Amino acid sequence: MQLLEERIRRDGKVKEGNVLKVDSFLNHQMDIRLFREIGKEFRRRFAGEEINKILTIEASGIGIACIAAEEFDVPVVFAKKTQTKNIAGDVYKSQVESYTHGRVYDIIVSKEFLGEGDRVLLIDDFLANGKALEGLCELVEASGAQLVGAGIVIEKGFQPGGDIIRSKGIHLESLAIVESMDDQTGEITFRRQEG
Amino acid sequence: MQLLEERIRRDGKVKEGNVLKVDSFLNHQMDIRLFREIGKEFRRRFAGEEINKILTIEASGIGIACIAAEEFDVPVVFAKKTQTKNIAGDVYKSQVESYTHGRVYDIIVSKEFLGEGDRVLLIDDFLANGKALEGLCELVEASGAQLVGAGIVIEKGFQPGGDIIRSKGIHLESLAIVESMDDQTGEITFRRQEG
Repeated sequence: MQLLEERIRRDGKVKEGNVLKVDSFLNHQMDIRLFREIGKEFRRRFAGEEINKILTIEASGIGIACIAAEEFDVPVVFAKKTQTKNIAGDVYKSQVESYTHGRVYDIIVSKEFLGEGDRVLLIDDFLANGKALEGLCELVEASGAQLVGAGIVIEKGFQPGGDIIRSKGIHLESLAIVESMDDQTGEITFRRQEG
Repeated sequence: MQLLEERIRRDGKVKEGNVLKVDSFLNHQMDIRLFREIGKEFRRRFAGEEINKILTIEASGIGIACIAAEEFDVPVVFAKKTQTKNIAGDVYKSQVESYTHGRVYDIIVSKEFLGEGDRVLLIDDFLANGKALEGLCELVEASGAQLVGAGIVIEKGFQPGGDIIRSKGIHLESLAIVESMDDQTGEITFRRQEG
């Protein structure tokens, strides 16, 4: 998605340790005009797919998921991150290992809001090692819902998440795939994708 | 806002301890069609106000803020909750006491995204004791930005938050104000508001 790649080049900051900061428009301050274009692009890439629910994960996936959901005219469910030992009520639960924060946390979703008959699109802002997305896939599987695919705004193509998800046969669409980046020069190279 | 009150009556669940569960449409599963109507109503209630930024707090405020932001054509910034002792970078920080979770946490926002010249509307899903909203007000004050007002989806009118915020002279608009609720009968009474 050219608009997005241009924005990442212009406003993204490449930091040491393969960190790409896009918090001026994606995951701290959020450019809602850009989100609308992102939502339309997800709709285009999953055209023809029957989808009745979008599942995302707090916190930075929620805004993108909500705007995209209007394009699909479906509700959003967000998985909650929790370190609480016991959750009241009936939930699906999965464990996610965070490299960024160096810890393991549970993600949960209420059984009320995900189940058989649901056809689910996953949406998130970033895909790097793929742990969060794998956790969301597990929630969908546990619920008996059908996983239609996953839409990601920025994939770090040099980290293993994308390959892991694609190797499972999941329809993954990443709107921008960073092939490499250089924290010395600030240069970012994107993977070429079919138009 | 009649549509919202009807929805709360229909799908909200009154639980012991003054808990109102609206997670089927507001803060776990999210009804984006309703969010659009909520966004329009915020726009109507803050008509004529100059606003260039919406500030909310993760996680459940984000979706509402993003949809509302399109009505105002402004970006959203969300304050992050953190228990981390040291935050890298320059942030405004405020402390929030959570009654629900029985702990104190910091909320932070990057100095890059809030400052002098900003005219800020706060948006959140719930107002009860007002601690989160007070924390957001403090962030705005610390940044030198102008606080235009606060838009809340559901205010628990029998808890002190609304009075505290209004007594500070802040323009607070709550789309539904629960005056009382009964966990035995499930009955919910709303405060009458000027149309």
